[in-house]
Amino acid sequence: MVSAAIQSLLLCETPSTWLEEASQQLPNLLIDQANCEKKAAATAVSLLHRSGSDERFSLELSRIAREELKHLELVLRVIKRHGMSTRHLSAGRYARALNEWTSKREPARLVDQLLVCAMIEARSCERIGALLAILKGDLRTLYEKLHDAEDRHFEFYVARAYTLDPNYCEERLASLSRLDAHLISQPDQEFRFHSGTPDR
Amino acid sequence: MVSAAIQSLLLCETPSTWLEEASQQLPNLLIDQANCEKKAAATAVSLLHRSGSDERFSLELSRIAREELKHLELVLRVIKRHGMSTRHLSAGRYARALNEWTSKREPARLVDQLLVCAMIEARSCERIGALLAILKGDLRTLYEKLHDAEDRHFEFYVARAYTLDPNYCEERLASLSRLDAHLISQPDQEFRFHSGTPDR
Repeated sequence: MVSAAIQSLLLCETPSTWLEEASQQLPNLLIDQANCEKKAAATAVSLLHRSGSDERFSLELSRIAREELKHLELVLRVIKRHGMSTRHLSAGRYARALNEWTSKREPARLVDQLLVCAMIEARSCERIGALLAILKGDLRTLYEKLHDAEDRHFEFYVARAYTLDPNYCEERLASLSRLDAHLISQPDQEFRFHSGTPDR
Repeated sequence: MVSAAIQSLLLCETPSTWLEEASQQLPNLLIDQANCEKKAAATAVSLLHRSGSDERFSLELSRIAREELKHLELVLRVIKRHGMSTRHLSAGRYARALNEWTSKREPARLVDQLLVCAMIEARSCERIGALLAILKGDLRTLYEKLHDAEDRHFEFYVARAYTLDPNYCEERLASLSRLDAHLISQPDQEFRFHSGTPDR
């Protein structure tokens, strides 16, 4: 389910305890999924403002942003079809911790942000692969659609980061891998799409 | 070319001197158009984060953001086809002045932001209508595509603002109309898609 590039990046798999929790928390899973798609679209659009005169990069980022928005619409429709409704759900610790990890100074900051985007897509791809084993019906169909996109987006972001500074990427990705594995394998009080092992 | 609702909102037409300048500054017009589409997409995505539990509003905003991104891609392709290239172009005074006009406090702020979105779409629609008279070939085709979307987006934003507070909207739109007309009819040192009369 997961490409070799993603497999070599992820130091741990989604814990079975998280999967069990997910099966009990489908409304929260979907609401947080909608929030993740919004955030992914917002990040791609914000990178557009920093793509300078590179039209090819801009075009690809724009297509990714459109795809994230299309996914948001799919998630919102499933939420509605299941008689659930969206409500405020605070962001989990995962993306916040990854963003705190990014350098505060350019040009490292842009490379780090691209690597964070890549890491989020990679972990999302793995996690969706794990979720597919427990989902049925239209929820399964929804996550199948998301799965392939995450892999493509991972490839795009990581390739872009490497064109900017390959040596720096090597070292930073190793650090980011450890941070991701820590957040995924350690107890987490909140249940979210990217949360750690359930702590209760 | 312009709906009755837009016509009643705009207190002046695009000046002929701006149109003459535009015909001499097609590369800058297109680069600024790309920037406007990025900004419009970013604004729609940022409003998504504030659409709360209103799925219908979220779905419509998401579709608008996707349409703005599609327009960005169309503009970037025309830029490339004409052998031009994008480069940094600072934002003009128009959107900045409209954003400064918005209330700093909620709940007025959200209504004002929706009205500013509506006003930008309305003026863009009128301006594109004027541009169509001087454009030919694929530039004309491009702007024809943009024209109809601006009108739809105007209707969407203004309707949404009115559902929140109709009396407030009435008064604020009158103020915004005057600000728009001032910015469009007064001398402007920079040439941009939303700039005033050329000052040179």
